[in-house]
Amino acid sequence: MKNIYVGLVHHPVYNKAGETITSGITNLDLHDISRSGMTYGLKRFYIIHPNDRQKEIFDHILDFWKTEIASFYNPHRVDALSIIDFSKTIIETLNKIKKEEKNDPLIITTTAKLRDNQISFNETRKLIHTTERPVLLLFGTGNGLHDDIHQQADYTLVPIQAATNYNHLSVRSAVAIVLDRLFSVEYKEEK
Amino acid sequence: MKNIYVGLVHHPVYNKAGETITSGITNLDLHDISRSGMTYGLKRFYIIHPNDRQKEIFDHILDFWKTEIASFYNPHRVDALSIIDFSKTIIETLNKIKKEEKNDPLIITTTAKLRDNQISFNETRKLIHTTERPVLLLFGTGNGLHDDIHQQADYTLVPIQAATNYNHLSVRSAVAIVLDRLFSVEYKEEK
Repeated sequence: MKNIYVGLVHHPVYNKAGETITSGITNLDLHDISRSGMTYGLKRFYIIHPNDRQKEIFDHILDFWKTEIASFYNPHRVDALSIIDFSKTIIETLNKIKKEEKNDPLIITTTAKLRDNQISFNETRKLIHTTERPVLLLFGTGNGLHDDIHQQADYTLVPIQAATNYNHLSVRSAVAIVLDRLFSVEYKEEK
Repeated sequence: MKNIYVGLVHHPVYNKAGETITSGITNLDLHDISRSGMTYGLKRFYIIHPNDRQKEIFDHILDFWKTEIASFYNPHRVDALSIIDFSKTIIETLNKIKKEEKNDPLIITTTAKLRDNQISFNETRKLIHTTERPVLLLFGTGNGLHDDIHQQADYTLVPIQAATNYNHLSVRSAVAIVLDRLFSVEYKEEK
């Protein structure tokens, strides 16, 4: 598998009114998405947030998980958080990945909405399998990634098609489902 | 689709030491799993907890989501929570479903571990498609459902096979992935 990165974007994203905002870091996003990331073999999970104070909160949460009591009490959570890192911007994230991989990552954005030129999960699996570039999957908090991010990405994935018209999964659930569809053994075996 | 129910079991479940415990209700389980449940067309999502004080906490959380401010500010969460209900025991849950459906539900348990006689996701999809009975999927909090629950169930689903040996998804992520594998349009179309 290619080296796969996930970025959870807190700015620029939309709020319910369609305004461009910066969302706050949610503690359980860190844990749930790290655990999903470890499960599906991600190389790194980036929390992307421009605000220094939020970086302090991030560091504060992670500091606890570096203590002996955390290792003793919940080693699986400590393991999962080993894949987490913080970037201030998407550009900074790209630069870090490029430095590590000696190659620009392919950027794939995700959204709960229909847009022009989205690629299917099947196409995305093939793309990830055939590209020689690392891959960065971007997920938006709040009400989703700003249009500018989609426009600058290489590809945008189709929304998760379910059984209903309700499309308000938590970002934690959406990341879990997308990683499962792209990287699970079950999916490959049954196809 | 059959009438599908999910139960999130807080007792009897295991803790990390393998002891039988009663776990506490987690606020974000209510929201995330309701939202996943709405997305995949669940009929109802049961929080199963034997403790009266926890029932009060459950009611307190839901009371907020019945207020006008919640409807105004976040109608999609209010919609999602319309599928949630509370039962003290699995037996009480079964009785409620039987009363509503005039038929005993097929009970399918889930686990992150390998056990004897587990059925695949493919077999489960076929089973749900062909049975005339409603279906209750049970998920464990803590370190998973007590053995007695598996033994009394009709079937136990295989663990979510991913790309690694790390099998410590949050229950919120596990429910999202299982519902997606069993009920998503994408899965059916690509098979």
